[in-house]
Amino acid sequence: MITLHGFSPSGNCQKVRLLLEQLGCDYRWVEVDIANGGTRTPEFLAKNPNGKVPMLETADGRILVESNAMLFWLAEGSAFFPADGWQRAQALSWMFFEQYSHEPYVAVARFICGWTALDSPRRAELPKLRERGLQALAVMERHLLTAPWFTGNAYGIADIALFAYTDVASDGGFDLSPYPGIRDWLARVRATPGFVPMPALDAQAAARIEAST
Amino acid sequence: MITLHGFSPSGNCQKVRLLLEQLGCDYRWVEVDIANGGTRTPEFLAKNPNGKVPMLETADGRILVESNAMLFWLAEGSAFFPADGWQRAQALSWMFFEQYSHEPYVAVARFICGWTALDSPRRAELPKLRERGLQALAVMERHLLTAPWFTGNAYGIADIALFAYTDVASDGGFDLSPYPGIRDWLARVRATPGFVPMPALDAQAAARIEAST
Repeated sequence: MITLHGFSPSGNCQKVRLLLEQLGCDYRWVEVDIANGGTRTPEFLAKNPNGKVPMLETADGRILVESNAMLFWLAEGSAFFPADGWQRAQALSWMFFEQYSHEPYVAVARFICGWTALDSPRRAELPKLRERGLQALAVMERHLLTAPWFTGNAYGIADIALFAYTDVASDGGFDLSPYPGIRDWLARVRATPGFVPMPALDAQAAARIEAST
Repeated sequence: MITLHGFSPSGNCQKVRLLLEQLGCDYRWVEVDIANGGTRTPEFLAKNPNGKVPMLETADGRILVESNAMLFWLAEGSAFFPADGWQRAQALSWMFFEQYSHEPYVAVARFICGWTALDSPRRAELPKLRERGLQALAVMERHLLTAPWFTGNAYGIADIALFAYTDVASDGGFDLSPYPGIRDWLARVRATPGFVPMPALDAQAAARIEAST
């Protein structure tokens, strides 16, 4: 059985949980307390020297890190994976876009709003993060004018990768009302069979987000 | 024939050039003057709304963006691509690591040193970028204690992805002398058949790097 080491409010972890659920895979979730050094213990760093979740562990103890590499590995051969080579490359292109041009702004703004003190100096980063995050959302919106999904002809791994943090972008202060294409796509993803939402935030994170946005 | 739109000193562009050369592919290189808005023209943005190079264009006008997605697409079925699914996932994991944990520090520090004025306020970012870049290099060094390559059992796409900016890390002020595993691996990559180095920097970039590091 697969073990997924994760932090429940993390979109990168939620991506993998969503695909495992939609594939009907049997798996075990191990919550990692990243706020209290859970990814910095010698035991964790021995498995992932980069000190990040999610971390996937197979039944025989092999380790795979990087959420989008997990999506690719888990989905290969399934309906969530493009069978055509060019479409597969386009899906990967969107997944690299997600990690380089989207997550560092949309996810990091949300992290600062929900998981740093209201007087944290990191809050000075928010205007720049929101500017760059909106640029990424505009690129997504433009694609959605021409196609219903990011994974070739059907819902799949690139949609899962981009959905995770886009669906909770308002937590970081992003207003999705100027992006009707994105809002419709989010609704289509939520309506896919076996969809599971991210678990509810704890009271402290929810209160900080309420006070930040 | 494939057209690669690129900026010669960019490691992300050099990755794709190196693989095309080592595959023996016929291709055309179109230099894009990114310092003077070459990726911000209406013509460019119509092809890549994210406004970045490299951008790959096929003979029939289809577009693929994101350097590591290009490596994956170009290499599929070749010796540079792991045939085994688990090794393929590990290679992708390193490629996502490269874009998330390595390039934003190692490449951006180099960009600031070589392509911003010596009194640019962006130079205040350098200490933090170097700290995070060294963390990425330490993760690579640890892997190289256990394996000669990042792409499964042989040289391939993950090595090409990580080589590009690691080989020019000194341009950003990174000292590789504490990383013998990395230095040996760089030498092994340079010795692969058909290897081509990044073109020499222009005089202005070279002088700024000289003055910065």
